[in-house]
Amino acid sequence: MADHKAQIQEKIKLQGETVRRLKAEKADADKISEEVSKLLDLKAQLGDDGPPQKFTLKTPKGTRDYSPQQMVIRNRVLDKIITVFKRHGAETIDTPIFELKEVLTGKYGEDSKLIYDLADQGGEILSLRYDLTVPFARFLAMNKISNIKRYQIAKVYRRDNPAMTRGRYREFYQCDFDIAGQYDPMIPDAECVKVATEILSSLELGDFIIKVNHRRLLDGLFEACGIPASSFRAACSSVDKLDKTPWEEVRAEMVGEKKLDPDAVDRLGEYVRMNGGEELADTLLADPKIGGTAAAKEGLQGIKLFLKYCKLFGLSSEISFDLSLARGLDYYTGIIFEAVLLGETAEDSVANKSKENSAREVGVGSVAGGGRYDNLVGMFDSKGRAVPCVGISIGVERIFSILEANVARQKAASGEVLRTTEVEAFVASAQKNMLTHRMELCRDLWDAGIKVEMSYKQNPKLLAQLQYCEERGIPLALVIGESEVEKGIVKVREVTSRKEEDIPRDSVATEIRKRLPQCS
Amino acid sequence: MADHKAQIQEKIKLQGETVRRLKAEKADADKISEEVSKLLDLKAQLGDDGPPQKFTLKTPKGTRDYSPQQMVIRNRVLDKIITVFKRHGAETIDTPIFELKEVLTGKYGEDSKLIYDLADQGGEILSLRYDLTVPFARFLAMNKISNIKRYQIAKVYRRDNPAMTRGRYREFYQCDFDIAGQYDPMIPDAECVKVATEILSSLELGDFIIKVNHRRLLDGLFEACGIPASSFRAACSSVDKLDKTPWEEVRAEMVGEKKLDPDAVDRLGEYVRMNGGEELADTLLADPKIGGTAAAKEGLQGIKLFLKYCKLFGLSSEISFDLSLARGLDYYTGIIFEAVLLGETAEDSVANKSKENSAREVGVGSVAGGGRYDNLVGMFDSKGRAVPCVGISIGVERIFSILEANVARQKAASGEVLRTTEVEAFVASAQKNMLTHRMELCRDLWDAGIKVEMSYKQNPKLLAQLQYCEERGIPLALVIGESEVEKGIVKVREVTSRKEEDIPRDSVATEIRKRLPQCS
Repeated sequence: MADHKAQIQEKIKLQGETVRRLKAEKADADKISEEVSKLLDLKAQLGDDGPPQKFTLKTPKGTRDYSPQQMVIRNRVLDKIITVFKRHGAETIDTPIFELKEVLTGKYGEDSKLIYDLADQGGEILSLRYDLTVPFARFLAMNKISNIKRYQIAKVYRRDNPAMTRGRYREFYQCDFDIAGQYDPMIPDAECVKVATEILSSLELGDFIIKVNHRRLLDGLFEACGIPASSFRAACSSVDKLDKTPWEEVRAEMVGEKKLDPDAVDRLGEYVRMNGGEELADTLLADPKIGGTAAAKEGLQGIKLFLKYCKLFGLSSEISFDLSLARGLDYYTGIIFEAVLLGETAEDSVANKSKENSAREVGVGSVAGGGRYDNLVGMFDSKGRAVPCVGISIGVERIFSILEANVARQKAASGEVLRTTEVEAFVASAQKNMLTHRMELCRDLWDAGIKVEMSYKQNPKLLAQLQYCEERGIPLALVIGESEVEKGIVKVREVTSRKEEDIPRDSVATEIRKRLPQCS
Repeated sequence: MADHKAQIQEKIKLQGETVRRLKAEKADADKISEEVSKLLDLKAQLGDDGPPQKFTLKTPKGTRDYSPQQMVIRNRVLDKIITVFKRHGAETIDTPIFELKEVLTGKYGEDSKLIYDLADQGGEILSLRYDLTVPFARFLAMNKISNIKRYQIAKVYRRDNPAMTRGRYREFYQCDFDIAGQYDPMIPDAECVKVATEILSSLELGDFIIKVNHRRLLDGLFEACGIPASSFRAACSSVDKLDKTPWEEVRAEMVGEKKLDPDAVDRLGEYVRMNGGEELADTLLADPKIGGTAAAKEGLQGIKLFLKYCKLFGLSSEISFDLSLARGLDYYTGIIFEAVLLGETAEDSVANKSKENSAREVGVGSVAGGGRYDNLVGMFDSKGRAVPCVGISIGVERIFSILEANVARQKAASGEVLRTTEVEAFVASAQKNMLTHRMELCRDLWDAGIKVEMSYKQNPKLLAQLQYCEERGIPLALVIGESEVEKGIVKVREVTSRKEEDIPRDSVATEIRKRLPQCS
């Protein structure tokens, strides 16, 4: 025990140094708070067998608060995403944050260990939702809905290793768009990718590509390479790591941990590192080993049709047919896709057109993913009735991080402050004992629908009130003193220009409305 | 065991009869689904030691999904509430759905047993948030914020006994508006009540009253009646039941369960059934037993100032000073309030003006509540620095229920359907093999920002497409066939009037924009 304690104290010392160093270097605020959080975790461990100590004031590991500034950015992003979802005619639904544990069981493969369970306090056994897809499928089966186009924006929960500086959290938003129903092949699938490209373009995050692949093609590849059917899902989840991990490591995992035949894995390795466009699909179809496998052929023909529809929707340079894309989750059955930011702003990309495709992907990550899952709803239906579905999920935390950094840069460069309220006018007193009159003026303006605030002090100083307006970017100050009350007027002051005009008290609301477009 | 099983089977039989009866009576859908849910719970209990059976497809007890129709209503309500919050100059924040369990400990008194805990899966011990107030206080202390006016709209979790027909859930929204900062007495407090009245008026839910009381006055009353200080919070939580429970039962709880002196409780009973306005405050101040107690005097003077400010904000008939209002939670320190719908529409109230106040409250409940909590932030600060706060929380589930019933009535009466999408135009094919052209037209319109959809079938029937537009309330159908493609035109059809006009394909977007105001 004492040894263990000493070890932790040593770790605390080292971690303390890291934090001090980062602060001295004026490092990124997110990075600092992540390291502080680790330090606090260590201190909390020590507290267990030490004397009672004040508990650490923090949010749970992997979660964060949103400040008013961050909320402005978050709401702008979500509004843009909702605009695109609505443009494509989607309705919206909501489901509880937790589900019966059984609903989630057997849907996520190896990732199931990351599910948050609720404590058993008597009654049902519950888990926090891991994504929005499984609850959506449960909703469809429970309500016997056989077709719907819906979006849902909500938080999901994963006990993953957080990397908050890169926007990876344990509590995070997903913005999902799904099309459920028995339709002709690849038409809804292509629309999902169109939706994703419209969203990424409207958010102005620079260049991106959307990798696509087909689960049937992967199954066919595994089969053709000699991997047994019982290991397909395990192989999928290894292949899926290729975006972050070199082939050698993925190979080692498949051969070592997953006990797959080394020759079969080597044969697979030839294929899963390929990417291209329609011509790659044709090449593989012509390859007798692949084209001769029913599943692979089906997948390749699907990919070809999908690429054709994408072109009709105006997409081609954004789409990359990529055999290394596998997606971790168990429930996909057809086309799968993933959007990756290329980490360049529009200006960069002009200068760097010559860079290789692979190089463009360094240090950036997936911001959207999805695919077809035709059997998930059937798993919830007592008669196994299937409702084919395809959908895309936008992961916005990373996008928030990028835009928060942009806003911070802008502030540093131009001093431009992000407004966190929409207050149009501030009711200020020019002298003492005006509280009654200020309250009445606020009442009249609120009742007229004007966004107004005032100081909560009996006798605030005029200068402090005007300074508040400037700091907060409030366009108008409405100043009243004894003489204004006597004359039945209000002094309307434009905060930036400092121009003042006397306005009859009864027409203040109308006057504010008139002036607002020109002062904002 | 066998006995227990037989008992459950008997209960299942009885519950099955209840469900069948309700269905036969065509009872309220919410009521039926609540009883079905009980039946499923019973069947699930039986499943434990019976043969393996299919698991029950349901949302967890006390929770519900929101259908697209319900989401339209929910978003309308929340938008109206946000409009009022913004009108009063509030910023918004967000906090995680769960907190370290220690953050919630010791804040809720007797209600703490209703907190949902997460399972211990290694790492921190977490609980779902029980309200938005305690996380807000944690946020202020953690970020050393000493003044802010913020709103937050988010779900909270309570393991309470659900009564879903009356809008009481285990997962439900709270819409909170709070003012934190060291200000002059009762000014922010009165604004919170002003905000609540603006919200309830804008939602057009009929008449309401806002009951107000003061924790210091309650403390003073308890003291004056001879209840020991250590029992104040327990007495508070009993008195708080007076809105639903007759005095005799509340008295019995205080004397029996809480072991309070019967004479003291009887003395208290004289007071806690009083309500009125400013004159009641004056009467109590003049009562030597009450007015002579420092805490009671402080509370009464506070109430008087508060009522004066409410009048300046245009409120008086809506406010009732009510000594039975206690609020269950531990953290209140000053003014407390609660808004109650009177269960009448505007028309009813004209006809029933003669009814007594007490009678008007039958069968309706609280939709908002709040108060002042000056010590909560200090509980989280290592140096105990206090940040005085006051706030109001709107409970919207009951409001959703009322408005959902209204929409259902409207639908039954006039056949008016609630649109769940905003689609402006539907791209339809007049004949076979138009998919390519439909996809291209959709692409151009999406890229022009028009809300458009099309059928996901290769060759949908024209009639089916036009029917879909009618059912969904889509104002325009854009019909293309071979001849339209040849001539470079699109047939624009107004769905309700069935008027058609040929428009050059290149100006379709402009034409849609022109027509939309007149067809919606």
